[in-house]
Amino acid sequence: MPTRIPVVEKILSANDRMAERNQNTLDQADVFAINIMASPGAGKTSVILKTLETLQGRLRLGVVEGDLASSIDAEKAAAAGLPAVQINTGGECHLDAAMLSDALPALPLSEIDLLLVENVGNLVCPANFQIGTHLNVLIASIPEGDDKPYKYPGMYRDVQALIINKIDLLPYVPFNMEYFRRGVEVLNPGLVTFAVSAKTGEGMAAWTDWLVERVKTK
Amino acid sequence: MPTRIPVVEKILSANDRMAERNQNTLDQADVFAINIMASPGAGKTSVILKTLETLQGRLRLGVVEGDLASSIDAEKAAAAGLPAVQINTGGECHLDAAMLSDALPALPLSEIDLLLVENVGNLVCPANFQIGTHLNVLIASIPEGDDKPYKYPGMYRDVQALIINKIDLLPYVPFNMEYFRRGVEVLNPGLVTFAVSAKTGEGMAAWTDWLVERVKTK
Repeated sequence: MPTRIPVVEKILSANDRMAERNQNTLDQADVFAINIMASPGAGKTSVILKTLETLQGRLRLGVVEGDLASSIDAEKAAAAGLPAVQINTGGECHLDAAMLSDALPALPLSEIDLLLVENVGNLVCPANFQIGTHLNVLIASIPEGDDKPYKYPGMYRDVQALIINKIDLLPYVPFNMEYFRRGVEVLNPGLVTFAVSAKTGEGMAAWTDWLVERVKTK
Repeated sequence: MPTRIPVVEKILSANDRMAERNQNTLDQADVFAINIMASPGAGKTSVILKTLETLQGRLRLGVVEGDLASSIDAEKAAAAGLPAVQINTGGECHLDAAMLSDALPALPLSEIDLLLVENVGNLVCPANFQIGTHLNVLIASIPEGDDKPYKYPGMYRDVQALIINKIDLLPYVPFNMEYFRRGVEVLNPGLVTFAVSAKTGEGMAAWTDWLVERVKTK
């Protein structure tokens, strides 16, 4: 009598299956995509615009902007000359794979090397939803305070790069960098980290050099 | 034959029923409670601690701190001499009425005039959950940027007071107060607003005077 062999498969959720499809679509178009997450007002759009400026044409960028409402961010990106799509989540606190799937056909993927997907400003919900990008990047910001890794551990665990933005405000707000970094290290040992100011441009070259390398070696 | 009269009742959700029960508990103990909401790092805990200092004993305060993880905020409040309870939501992006219901018995309600409930740092989820407090207060912060009312309209609609914190950073970050206030006015006409710095204490007296008045006339 044949033995019954239990077969255990990872059952993907509908969202994860859609995320896989998105990644296939991006791969076929040779587009590297990153999912940018942060609190409201940490400077996601500012970092994206300064990234464009700092790259000086070394990569062709495209942008997907996620917000509950409004098209403020996509308008800023379009004004800077980027192909941009706005997703309005209609109240949802994060992007999901279906939303990105709807947005991709509106972009000229064959003319894009690096797609920057700006998630809804939120340090909780976006961490739980894969959308099909190749990399998760978190932007922290100095005026938010140094205790955020301790308070929002899930978000700090699930990213492959961290940008610490608004370092130009370090003289004006209390922020213990050592305490902050210790919190990050416990959750995500060795996480590649860039301290930048999207306002002054400080530190942006290291971030964009790293990005270029990631896109080239994808 | 008797006419059948349709009776239409507002069916409360389990959460709303629990919120009503919390408010009854608070009313019976003669405690006025406010639900403080904001982005991560807007300064909820700092405003609470400066409120305590500015009130100089005019009201007896108590604090409930809501976070995904950690007890950093409750420890700060306790160190300042406040009766404090920490709620860890275990990943949930907001407090709900059941969580507050669990926290209330741990507080000496008969020794509290004003209970400050600090929600999870989030500009989306907390707006959708009544917890049984008497007032919703939103804290915005200058470095977050002036476009937040346009991007997170739900949160700005559902509050009865607005604190604009970190006005000491106005010289160092781009923030158009007129644009910000116009966005608020559309969503929540006439919303009572206090511009403050929890760091320097500027503007805190107007906020605490208003609080004292609200507690007295409850």
